[in-house]
Formats: sequence, structure tokens, C-alpha cells
Amino acid sequence: MSNTDRFRELGQQLRVDSVRSSDAAGSGHPTSSMSAADLMAVLIDGGYLHWDSDDLRNPANDHLIFSKGHASPLYYSVLKATGVIDDPELLTFRKFGSRLEGHPTPRIPPTDVATGSLGQGLPIAVGIALAGRRLDRLPYRVWCLCGDSEMAEGSIWEAFEHAAFNQLDNLTAIIDVNRLGQTRETMVGWDLDRYRARAEAFGWHAIEIDGHDVEAIAAAYDEAVQTTGRPTVIIAKTKKGKGVAAVEDQPGKHGKPLEDAAAAIQELGGERDLHVRVAEPEPGTQHVFPTAGGELPSWKVGEQVATRQAYGEALAALGNLRGDVVALDGEVSNSTHAELFRQAHEDRYFEMFIAEQQLVAAAVGMQVRGWVPFGSTFAAFLSRAYDFIRMAAISRADLRLCGSHAGVSIGEDGPSQMALEDIAAFRAIHGSTVLHPSDANQTAQLVSAMADRKGISFLRTLRGKTTVHTSPDEKITIGGSRQLTDGDDVAIIACGITVDEAVAAAEQLVGDSIHARVIDAYSIKPIDAAAVLSAARDCRAIVTVEDHWPEGGLGDAVLEALAEADHPPVHKLAVRTMPGSGTPEQLLHGAGIDAVGITSAARDLVGR
Amino acid sequence: MSNTDRFRELGQQLRVDSVRSSDAAGSGHPTSSMSAADLMAVLIDGGYLHWDSDDLRNPANDHLIFSKGHASPLYYSVLKATGVIDDPELLTFRKFGSRLEGHPTPRIPPTDVATGSLGQGLPIAVGIALAGRRLDRLPYRVWCLCGDSEMAEGSIWEAFEHAAFNQLDNLTAIIDVNRLGQTRETMVGWDLDRYRARAEAFGWHAIEIDGHDVEAIAAAYDEAVQTTGRPTVIIAKTKKGKGVAAVEDQPGKHGKPLEDAAAAIQELGGERDLHVRVAEPEPGTQHVFPTAGGELPSWKVGEQVATRQAYGEALAALGNLRGDVVALDGEVSNSTHAELFRQAHEDRYFEMFIAEQQLVAAAVGMQVRGWVPFGSTFAAFLSRAYDFIRMAAISRADLRLCGSHAGVSIGEDGPSQMALEDIAAFRAIHGSTVLHPSDANQTAQLVSAMADRKGISFLRTLRGKTTVHTSPDEKITIGGSRQLTDGDDVAIIACGITVDEAVAAAEQLVGDSIHARVIDAYSIKPIDAAAVLSAARDCRAIVTVEDHWPEGGLGDAVLEALAEADHPPVHKLAVRTMPGSGTPEQLLHGAGIDAVGITSAARDLVGR
Repeated sequence: MSNTDRFRELGQQLRVDSVRSSDAAGSGHPTSSMSAADLMAVLIDGGYLHWDSDDLRNPANDHLIFSKGHASPLYYSVLKATGVIDDPELLTFRKFGSRLEGHPTPRIPPTDVATGSLGQGLPIAVGIALAGRRLDRLPYRVWCLCGDSEMAEGSIWEAFEHAAFNQLDNLTAIIDVNRLGQTRETMVGWDLDRYRARAEAFGWHAIEIDGHDVEAIAAAYDEAVQTTGRPTVIIAKTKKGKGVAAVEDQPGKHGKPLEDAAAAIQELGGERDLHVRVAEPEPGTQHVFPTAGGELPSWKVGEQVATRQAYGEALAALGNLRGDVVALDGEVSNSTHAELFRQAHEDRYFEMFIAEQQLVAAAVGMQVRGWVPFGSTFAAFLSRAYDFIRMAAISRADLRLCGSHAGVSIGEDGPSQMALEDIAAFRAIHGSTVLHPSDANQTAQLVSAMADRKGISFLRTLRGKTTVHTSPDEKITIGGSRQLTDGDDVAIIACGITVDEAVAAAEQLVGDSIHARVIDAYSIKPIDAAAVLSAARDCRAIVTVEDHWPEGGLGDAVLEALAEADHPPVHKLAVRTMPGSGTPEQLLHGAGIDAVGITSAARDLVGR
Repeated sequence: MSNTDRFRELGQQLRVDSVRSSDAAGSGHPTSSMSAADLMAVLIDGGYLHWDSDDLRNPANDHLIFSKGHASPLYYSVLKATGVIDDPELLTFRKFGSRLEGHPTPRIPPTDVATGSLGQGLPIAVGIALAGRRLDRLPYRVWCLCGDSEMAEGSIWEAFEHAAFNQLDNLTAIIDVNRLGQTRETMVGWDLDRYRARAEAFGWHAIEIDGHDVEAIAAAYDEAVQTTGRPTVIIAKTKKGKGVAAVEDQPGKHGKPLEDAAAAIQELGGERDLHVRVAEPEPGTQHVFPTAGGELPSWKVGEQVATRQAYGEALAALGNLRGDVVALDGEVSNSTHAELFRQAHEDRYFEMFIAEQQLVAAAVGMQVRGWVPFGSTFAAFLSRAYDFIRMAAISRADLRLCGSHAGVSIGEDGPSQMALEDIAAFRAIHGSTVLHPSDANQTAQLVSAMADRKGISFLRTLRGKTTVHTSPDEKITIGGSRQLTDGDDVAIIACGITVDEAVAAAEQLVGDSIHARVIDAYSIKPIDAAAVLSAARDCRAIVTVEDHWPEGGLGDAVLEALAEADHPPVHKLAVRTMPGSGTPEQLLHGAGIDAVGITSAARDLVGR
């Protein structure tokens, strides 16, 4: 067989296998797979995709991201053709316990990340490509298959901008322009010139082709590989359901198996069993950053330091200790203090500008390659990337995020800049860790612990200065807490900015002969359940106090720890009305979460 | 004075007032205001902006959105120049209690929405412009001032695409290209041609100007007003801090008052007190959609109906009853069943394609004009717009969102499509309402109630069918619950898909002589605290069961209701491990939230 004949046969095999697996599953997206089958056939069989078939984790391997994750039947058919899975496993598609889920996840190597929420694969591919150029310094390429419907996601254009800005000529995006979305034609349809104009305006090299012409596909891949200084996008005109007349370019055929699979397979020329020997990766050695050693920073008890400042100093120090730590920031590095890392380790710092989705996606991409990313912006603006964080959990990503400027205590900037739902949002991420240190020494130790933490860790830092209560030699651990005062009348469980307020309240309560046990719950998830349960046993009431809405924050974490236990009344102090501008003190007082509010609540609960 | 001289003088006044207010506040963004001062001076004084100065709520008024909300000093200076506020109020900027917050909010009319999270103003402006063309059918224009840093947000390009697709020639975006972000130059700098190429590729008419040349500004506005069939973007090259040498085009001058305000004011020519008579709006009458009457749909007890189906039918019926209800969907209307509204009321349906940020922003824009938008997509994908939803609360928006395909019960599609954090995320939105009906009759009544609900309401619907337990004539209210079985051994509090499972569990428990009280908590926020407290008083244990992660969902809402009360053990059943694909039954069982899991938990708690 000639190359082109083999490409065509392989394309038909990928279609047949997509139809077969979806038919066996009784669900799935075969038509969205069939449109891109020729594109993938040429990629794997034409020597463009480079994988070490004996070592799917070889650092030199190329990366293949299906940004259109619903084309999973095609993806799994590619894995079968390349020998990663066998035919019986292909037919477990979408079955309980199978690694072949409805949308790809890293459960099935070499899959890097979960896709299926559209518009995320390409920004993650940008992160991997950034790692290839600036961190690994290996010649691998990143190939990303996009659907045309997802080109409507803004995150795609964040990716386009960052890929061009970073001159990522190791990245190739392939847009499968089959024109039909779930219910109707896309806004652009088959007007490939419009995609080209957009891509070029964002700085990419763009190639328009017929996505079913295997020679044109091969020529486009050749051109992409040869293009330097900028990424390439291949804009491929295709037909959804290509090859089966009953569904080809037909509306209403999205996301369902073919009605007559047997006839479709026959129309496609029947089953085939072609095996592809994927090209070997180019040899290379992964770059290692030298380390300078040193220690984490520490501060004296009683000093006034903002935890965001401690974050920056700790991260910079961690970069001296570890060569695998990298940092990304959303153009607020002088606020989050990630700038301290940038100044110390410029080659491991990534400016992501005002593009929080791309920020998180790039971090996800870098951890794919084993790097230890810390991403930072205002905690409020991490909400912009919440879907990316949700998906990162499904990707089993180890990701560290730092959100600064938490709560009303930021003061004059007003509620748009105040994170007041961030603890709730991050607690509800599967497998997450949620940390909110009250002082600089805690922060430094927690930053270090996050580097070794699995899953998604969130560190919430403060704009204003707080008193260092934690001694530099006191061990701070994820899941722990600190008790600041003794007492068994009332427990005051605080975190972050409210710890100083709680301590002040405890001092005032002594005058009422109320002895308060102040607990600094710097680890909100996991919460120190033992300390909470002890407080519930010993005290007549518990007050929780947080600079956050009442729902889903520290108070709810405490209640969860007490759910199955006898406990005294738990009174949650939190922000209950929409704040405006003002000084931090005015706003904390207005929300009833300052020392006055805490004292008053404690008196109401246990006053005699 | 000639027009151009007056424009220049007014521009200087806006600068001076920006410097003065920031100086009085001790914080703020005067330099980001000074770059756009000439653009705003010509807009308000050149007769381009149309406002009824005697009625800031006149439906015919133009809308002015500061997408770069941090330029609030300029915005408030505009309000002073146009007579909306006086000089003493201007100087309350950022002070506690002032309407003039650090970033604009609707507390100060005629401000439509809160801005300050970048990249949101333009998508909201698209929503208002859509309302102008397709709903109000009034000739008002929408003017949106964007910063150049925020052009890196993907949401901006969602807005560009939708504005062009909808031919919104009533929308003008003004990009203040001062090139300097918070810490450095933007990715594009002063390369205006690149912005032009992008805008044109997305279908806009683009005009490049010197943003400090008042004649060029006026010409650009004239051209924008005359351009038909597409929106116009004015790309204005400006200097940050324009007019004061100490800060003009200087890095490191972002977000802080000028060091020597008095000298700066002198350099700007001193204080002025120009008053602008804004142009009157063009007369017009707001369009009203005819209503057809009818009733909400209802179903017989025992029928099997998916709540997403009920949503679509109820919304279509509501559209017959009310002319103000409109619907938007993210290109999944045959899944959410918003298609039923589209089919019945095509002129009030808006297809937002795969662009969830623009979907929510458009809904926010429409409610600015008094319309009653219902936006829908998969609940999982509303997480894409979480920052927009957060900001909508600060905008005091009345917004209804429906998220379908909740939880593992969707089955084979896998976790990327399963909303498992949505209840937590929406509970943590200020002033929100979170509803999760278990049957079709509940759904219909709740959809109707949402139309009159203030704030942000979220309705969570199911992919699969559930049994109708609620009689068609039973009144379902926000804040209520339903008791399905009597019992005082254990209370099982369920919602959505788990209600049928709870009922089945209760039947099985009878065999163990355990009498379970099953409560359907279809209103999660507000929760029916009275029913929860009664259950806690009467029963020896409480089991909560939800198709959601353990954090922030129904279980935590129940615990919050019990926080200050004596209560028996509360055992939370929820999804605790990452699901894969499978049948709904397999996945519910795997998560331990089916009848088997509930029965087992109840036996462990109260078995004899």
C-alpha cells in the first residue's frame, strides 16, 4: 500500500472502531470522531506524532491532547491502532470500571489530562508546550485536536494569544471544522477564512485544508513542523459523520451511536486491523535547574507581616531549595508577591497576564511534565478559572494555587476584589487542600508543604499585615491547628485575618470572667477534627469567625467535623451583607467579624 | 470656547477630579483614569452619550459601562461633570458608606452593573445591546470603555464574536490602549494594528486613533454611530497618567494616588467646574411581547419525567404567561430542554453557543433592562462563568440559572460532564437561592417562583427520569420541603435523584422495624430549617444524601440549620471518590448514595 492509501485505510479503521465502541456502549460521539479520523490517521501513521511505544512516560514523547474530548471514540481508536490498548478493551468504552471513560482522563496512559469541558485542551497544551521550551528544553511537540464549536470559548483565544506571545512553534492546533455543533451550525460554519484571519491576527501560522484529503493533511503537518517562531493551526474543513451517508453532515446526529452500526461499518469498508508503529521520539535530556540551597524564611514572633509577602519570600526560597518549582501569575505579581520568585528565578517564572483560565491551564500543563507549579492571582479572580480547577481534579493534577486579597479586610477596593466565596469553592474541589494561614511563619511552612502535596492545594493570603504568633521553630502541618489561648467557656475558631481579632476578643472576655480558647484553624481542609472535637467537649459554646460568606467556609468545615458528635451551640460569624469600600477595620467591624463582634457573640452564648 | 477647546478643558477637569478623589481616598487608580479622560470628555460633551438627566432610569437612555472598573475615579468624575453627583460626594470616593466604591456598582445610578473583575463589562454590554435590538427595540446605544490589559481575557473575545454575530451596531467599544498594565507592558503594547486585525477578524468595524486628539475622537464616534450592521471598536492610543509628567507613561504608577497631587493639579491647569448637558435620548417606546395565557404544565403522581424536561416545558409555559421572560442557552438546548422555549418563543430565545461567560453576562445585561432571563447549560459548565455569577451578585442582578445533568446520575458521559460542586458554589453566592427539585411538578412551580425572585437563583435539574411524588395541586414554595414518609427513628434528607432512593430505603428499613422520615429538601438555600429542626428533635439520627461532593451541599445546609441546636448524629452521604463512566445505577451505587447505601447508613446509626 502507498502511504496515502494506508492513511485512508487507517482513517476508515478509526471510523469503524469509533462506530463499534459507541455501539457497544450505547452512547458516545461517533460522528464527532468520524470528522477527524483522517487527521489523526495521518498524524500517527505519517511519522508526525512521536511516542516511545515501550515507554509512554518517556519525557521526550510528543503530547496529543484531544481538546474536543467528546471525540473519545476516535481517541481510543487511535490508542488501539498504536497498540496502547487491545480490541476487547476498546469495547469496554463507557462501561463501569473501564479506563475508557466517556471523555478521556489520565486513567488511560498516555493521556495527560482530562478533557470534555470544551476549550480547555488547547490552553493546557500551551502549558505543556511552554514546559517543553522553557523548562524541559526537549524537542517534543504538542498536538492538539480542537472542535470548531469550542472556538467560541474565550479560553481558546487566551491560548492563541499566549502561544504566539511565547513563540511556541512546538505547538500545533488542529481544528476539526465539521461546522455542526450539538443543535445547529456554529457561528462560523465552514468559513475557514474567518478562522484563519483570527488565528493570524493572534500571531499564528495558519493553514487551511480539506480535512479528508490525506495528502493535504500530510503537507500541512510538514509545514507545521517546519514553521519556526510561532505556533501553527491547521484549519481543516471536515464533515461530521464522514463516510456514512445516514449521518454525514446531517444535523441531529450529535452525541449518539449510529442507528444501524452494522450497515455503517459495511459502508466504511468493514473492520480492519491495521497496526501503526508510531515514530520514536527525538532523543534529548530533560533540563534540570540548579539549586542554591538555603532555608525557608522566618519571622520573629510579634512582627507584623502580610501573609502575601510571606508567600512570595517563601516561594522564592523554595525555588532555591528545589529546581522543580515554577511560578505563574496573572499580572498582579507585585500584589501577590510572586514577583519575589520572578526576581530570583526569572527562567522559571511565567507571566500569564490578565488571563486566569490560561494561568491555571498552563500550570496543569506544566505538572503533566512533572514540574511543581504555583499559580497566583487575587483569590477573587481564581473564580474565573473555576471550571479549569474542577477539571484539574479530574486530571488528577498536582496543582498549587495562591489567592491573595481575601475578604473584606482588603478595604477600599470594594467587593469585586474581595474573595468571599473562595474557601467554599475550593473545599468543593475533589481531593483539595484549603489553607488559610494567619501569619508569615505558617505561610512559609505551608508553601513548602504544598510542593509535596498531591491534588489541588489552595493557599489564601491576606493583603494586610498580621501579627506573627507562630514561633519560627514550631512545626506547622497540613491538617493541624494552633491553640492561642486556654479556656473552656467558649471556643473561638478563627483563620487568617480573624485570628488577631479572636485573640483581642479573648482578652476582652477575661473581664467578663469568660475564658475563651482561641484556635487558629489555618488548615480548613483537612480541618483539625481532633482540636474541634476537643473544643466541643470542653466548651459551652463555639464561635467560628471568618472573612468569607457564611456558606461553605470555616464554619461549615467545623460543623462537618462535629456532624456526628454531641456539641454545644456553634455560632458562625461571617460576612452576611454585601460590603462596600472602607478601611479594613471599618469593614471587619461592619461585618461583625472583628473583636467587638466576636466578644459580643461569645457573651450572648456563654455570658452569665 | 470652541467645541474642541471645551473637550480639552473637560478632559483636564476629569483628570483633575480623578487626581483629587484618589488623593482624598488615599488609594485608587488615577493614572488609569487619566489615559481615558479625553475619550470620555468627548463622549459626554460631544452629544454622543444620550441620557435623560431628569430620569436616569429612562428606558431610552444610552448605557455607559466601564469595563475597566478600576478607572472609577474617571467614572465618578464623569458623573460629577454631568450633574449626577456633586463635588462633596465625589470626595467621598472609597470611604465607608459612600456610594462611590473603589470599583463602580449599581449603588450609584445610572451604573448598570458592577465592574472591577476585568473582561466582564464588554460581555455585559453585549447583553444590553442585544436587549436593545431584540427585546426593548429602542434606539439606545451602549458605550463600553475597555482597558487594554483586559483584552487578554478570553471573555472579551466571546463578546467580540457574539456582538458581530448579532450585528450589534448599537454597541461601541472604546479600548484605552495605554499599554501599561499593573506590573509591565501588555502583550500587545501600542501595536494598535494588532488589535484592529483581531477585531476585524471577529467581524467588527475598527478605528484607530490618538486617544488624546479630541477631534479624532469625535470623528471616531461619528463614524461609530454611522456604522450599520456591525459593532464598532475605537482603538485609542493613550498614555497612562496623561498630563502629569511624574506619572505619564511611567511604569510602577498603577493603582496608587499621585505623590504630589497639588502639583499635579497645577500641572493640569487647576480645578475647573464645567457642567455638561448630556444629549437627550431619542424617543421611543419599549417593545412589549404579547402573552398567550395558559397554565404551567403539570404531571400525574407516579409519572416518570426528567426534571430537565419539566424545566423546558415550564419555561415555555411561563413565556406564554409573561412577556418579560427570556431564555439563553449554551448550545445544549436539546439537553437542558430550553429548546422548548425556543420553539415557542423564538424571538425571546438567545443562542449563546459554547460561551458560558458570555451566556451569563448577556443575562446580566438583559436584566439591567428589566427582562427576566433564564440561562441554561449543563450545571458543570456554569462553573466556567463562576466569576461572572459572583460579580452578578455585586451587580444586584436578578438572574435565573438552570444547570442540568447534575451529579453521577448522568451516567456514561463521565465526570467532566457531572456537576458535583455546583450546590456548594451557588450556595456561596451572596443572596442566592439554590433549588434542586426531585420531580416535574416541583420543577414547574419553582421555575415560576424564580421569575419573581430577587438575586441569583439556581435550579439544578436531572438528566434521568424521576417519579412524580408531588401532586399537581400541592403548593411548592422556595424555602419549603416535602415529607414523604412518617417516622421518628431516622430522618433521611434527600434532594433530586436521591429522593426516590430514600423512599426505597425507607421501605426496606421497615423490615428492620426502623421507621424513616424521608424529607425532600428541594430548597437547599434557603433550607426548610423548621423541618430540619423537627427531624432533629424527633429522630435518633439524620442521614443526608446527595449526588454532590460532601462539601458545601445539602448536608452542609442541614448542618448549618442545626448549628446552634441539640441534634442527633448527622451522617452525610455524598460522592466521595472520583466517579468514572457507568450506568446511573452503577454510579449511584458506587458512590453509596443509592437505596442500598442509605439503608446501610441508617441501620448503622439506629439499628437495634
